[in-house]
Amino acid sequence: MTGLSANKIKWIRSLQQKKFRDELDLFVIEGEKLVTEAIFTCPDAIELIVHTDRFSYPINSQIETILTSENDFKRISSLQHPQGCLAILKKNKKQVFPEEKGLILALDSVQDPGNLGTILRIADWFGIKQVVCSHTTVDCYNPKVVQSSMGAVLRINIQYTQLETWLEKTNLPVYGALLEGSSIYKESLPEEAVIVMGNEGNGISEEVTTFVTHPVTIPSFGGSESLNVAVATGIIVSEFRRS
Amino acid sequence: MTGLSANKIKWIRSLQQKKFRDELDLFVIEGEKLVTEAIFTCPDAIELIVHTDRFSYPINSQIETILTSENDFKRISSLQHPQGCLAILKKNKKQVFPEEKGLILALDSVQDPGNLGTILRIADWFGIKQVVCSHTTVDCYNPKVVQSSMGAVLRINIQYTQLETWLEKTNLPVYGALLEGSSIYKESLPEEAVIVMGNEGNGISEEVTTFVTHPVTIPSFGGSESLNVAVATGIIVSEFRRS
Repeated sequence: MTGLSANKIKWIRSLQQKKFRDELDLFVIEGEKLVTEAIFTCPDAIELIVHTDRFSYPINSQIETILTSENDFKRISSLQHPQGCLAILKKNKKQVFPEEKGLILALDSVQDPGNLGTILRIADWFGIKQVVCSHTTVDCYNPKVVQSSMGAVLRINIQYTQLETWLEKTNLPVYGALLEGSSIYKESLPEEAVIVMGNEGNGISEEVTTFVTHPVTIPSFGGSESLNVAVATGIIVSEFRRS
Repeated sequence: MTGLSANKIKWIRSLQQKKFRDELDLFVIEGEKLVTEAIFTCPDAIELIVHTDRFSYPINSQIETILTSENDFKRISSLQHPQGCLAILKKNKKQVFPEEKGLILALDSVQDPGNLGTILRIADWFGIKQVVCSHTTVDCYNPKVVQSSMGAVLRINIQYTQLETWLEKTNLPVYGALLEGSSIYKESLPEEAVIVMGNEGNGISEEVTTFVTHPVTIPSFGGSESLNVAVATGIIVSEFRRS
């Protein structure tokens, strides 16, 4: 007994690939918490909900919902331990920011899905509403990004663009995390700024570095050569907010 | 052409399990960078090096070294993309700290290997030499912890203990990350202290909370319910070091 046709299973599974997410302008969220949040905050974006009988709270009757078996659910889930509930959402298609203000995070080739998700969660915690990513940054609708962002991907305006071109145009001061920057602890930090964070292995690219007006660094007191990029983002954003 | 017997392969693979790491008091590090660091910093701890012909820099002649085929190397590697070089190390058996001083990090049931590795890397960056873990915290010699710690596991004194008993005895002030704590930005933080961080889902346990003398929190400015525990550790430790 299942409401999922073979075609529907194929369609949902295809969304694990960026190619199909881009083509169909859809992505998947999983787990009761995320799906519940989507029902409350962006019901119009929900295309479909699929769940097993483990999942029984009242669902908005405007949204198409399919009850399926545990076995079929396993086939569409991208999680190691499927939670029995997922939703297909329309992507947020805004491709420009209404206005550049406050703190904006700019990501230059962040590659690891877990890192991007964690960075979006940090942005959300610290009230950053706009994140600009280079085209070489991992897709924010990647299932692992969505999952590790803990829903932040639903709440933040994320834009993919040619980062150099975008930085060239901004009127905000551009802070960048660079090993040779000045200590972030000693800077007097503004309320409005762009904060650039770079790739896990190589940091900010040379091209993007030319647009950094304020190179900053987190002083080291010990043996590690570097900090994880999400941890460094957390510390730097925290410095902006504390002041 | 391989120098790895079936028995040796079985022995190395067994070290992916905590049971055998505990029994044999050994663990595995992988990758040229980590192995090179071990050769320079703790050659006496190295039991054996195994590498493929991709790996050719001069090796300390005191250390037993086995050249093996790519195929056999894949069988002993715990990485998705084996780098062709690993070492078996004796665990650091110090089970007590020589002296409680400076900043000490205490971890209460941190479960995710990536999080523990990242936390050790943070401790190392900020010059924290001692980390105390509850018995319910993931094993620091777990391959994923070793890898994500970027070698910090070789440089830090890590102790597993009954955390409540240890906290009861310490003379240092005990800071704990708790949602209802006072803003970490407003605290005047000492140079010597214990910083307690809790489990990913549940935070610090009730039992351990009773030993927290200074509950602190990272103020939220937005939508996320929480920060990743490694990110929170980074921000809190940074606050101690900046002052």
